[in-house]
Amino acid sequence: MRPTVRIVEVGARDGLQNEKAIVATADKIALIDRLSATGLQSIEATSFVSPKWVPQLADAAEVFAGITRKSGVHYPVLVPNERGYERALAVGVEEIAVFSAASEAFNQKNINASIAESLARFEPVMARAKADGIRVRGYVSTVLGCPYQGEVPVAEVVRVARELHQMGCYEVSLGDTIGIGTPGKARAMLRAVASEVPMDALAVHFHDTYGQALANILACLEEGVAVVDSAVSGVGGCPYAKGASGNVASEDVVYMLDGLGVESGVDLALLAETGRWLATLLGRKTGSKVGRALA
Amino acid sequence: MRPTVRIVEVGARDGLQNEKAIVATADKIALIDRLSATGLQSIEATSFVSPKWVPQLADAAEVFAGITRKSGVHYPVLVPNERGYERALAVGVEEIAVFSAASEAFNQKNINASIAESLARFEPVMARAKADGIRVRGYVSTVLGCPYQGEVPVAEVVRVARELHQMGCYEVSLGDTIGIGTPGKARAMLRAVASEVPMDALAVHFHDTYGQALANILACLEEGVAVVDSAVSGVGGCPYAKGASGNVASEDVVYMLDGLGVESGVDLALLAETGRWLATLLGRKTGSKVGRALA
Repeated sequence: MRPTVRIVEVGARDGLQNEKAIVATADKIALIDRLSATGLQSIEATSFVSPKWVPQLADAAEVFAGITRKSGVHYPVLVPNERGYERALAVGVEEIAVFSAASEAFNQKNINASIAESLARFEPVMARAKADGIRVRGYVSTVLGCPYQGEVPVAEVVRVARELHQMGCYEVSLGDTIGIGTPGKARAMLRAVASEVPMDALAVHFHDTYGQALANILACLEEGVAVVDSAVSGVGGCPYAKGASGNVASEDVVYMLDGLGVESGVDLALLAETGRWLATLLGRKTGSKVGRALA
Repeated sequence: MRPTVRIVEVGARDGLQNEKAIVATADKIALIDRLSATGLQSIEATSFVSPKWVPQLADAAEVFAGITRKSGVHYPVLVPNERGYERALAVGVEEIAVFSAASEAFNQKNINASIAESLARFEPVMARAKADGIRVRGYVSTVLGCPYQGEVPVAEVVRVARELHQMGCYEVSLGDTIGIGTPGKARAMLRAVASEVPMDALAVHFHDTYGQALANILACLEEGVAVVDSAVSGVGGCPYAKGASGNVASEDVVYMLDGLGVESGVDLALLAETGRWLATLLGRKTGSKVGRALA
């Protein structure tokens, strides 16, 4: 296991985009500013996907312009195409994230394009980002299963991850979008990808739909991964399983890392307080068990 | 990892004794009968601890007399002393469970006796059980921490587990009573105990207070443990952390075992249905994420 692990906090983007409640712009800004105070080094701030598709994050520009960026902290934003890239650049974004599924069926249903087409769409974005000095993170979704096609061949996950890395993503996050994976499969998938993309350029991204996220993260830490995506308060949900849990809660990940003696630099008490504050905003109790136990 | 793992379902005892709601006797009987239909091989049925201490299980005799015992399934009951043993024997119990903390402070607060005193109290029970052909399971609690004394030395856990085994317990379950443990500590604790008690005579028992239970179980499975305690619907709670989660949910454990290719013999769909039925009885949604996702 690595002595230090970086958490990429995705609550303000992957979390909130899957919440029914629309959070006020000022509250999103407050959320990100609170997260900045916890010691997190990467905080995904918002998404410049069209508001038509993600109304929850229609205020992306206002949110990004409103946050207080802390020195040394990265604030990536999701960008779907050149139009989104331009909107992001206009408000001073310094890191973007691009994405593709590993499942053809998912990509078709989700963005009405084949994997090859969507990777091709990102090429001009990557070129401009390189010229503009913008860092690019890549997401591969449905790495352990797809709500439409079921099984996703590991070879496809490897191929998409490798292409994103070759296109210039400094880091590729491997996402179990529907939270269906279990530790043996997660470990095998990560190992396969790491045979073609350096482990240091990989992150894991688990949803807790079936309660497996932390066990999957443990298996991947044992494999040597050093970056873990998670969302404060376990926000989000699963559009494919009504009432299901969302992203793995950052608090629970940090608690595990602390116990394992793995340094994340995150202040757990502050993070848990932020998670409970966010849950109150969303009108429910925190989705983090650590958050509840520490309350 | 072992090819097969036995689940010891503790919802009807460890779960319900920590629930505020008093479940009707007929519903407890229905719960156990439903669990018997899922393929579980060990179902802890109730507790013959004094109703003064555990009013939730005051109907232990009626529950045990009312269930339909399935051939090949064991139905242990918790027994605190000879009086409890006699009450259990009177209704035809064939397996009992005795218990001690690994923490002196916890044992004093919990049963007003030192560990040595409480083990001594079980000696006549063990002798009678042996003569009567009754199987005895042992519980060691607070194996990864204590709400009163904090740290619990691993050597103490090893000592209490060894004594219970030497006294005649065919299996000793190592319980993280307050759910505070993380995978590295769980693994180290199990490894230490297994150096003095055969791994085949050990079980692990995790509470999900801090969301770590499944990750801890994974670490212990990797260490070679073949018996896991869990509670359908994640029932229970934590008397030391208000509003916290209870036992690890059996559904989530079985889902993980299924994914790992480890045979438990349990029908996950039936188990999840039973968990949702129990949650409805308790007036809340199931504590199993698998139960929610499959709903």
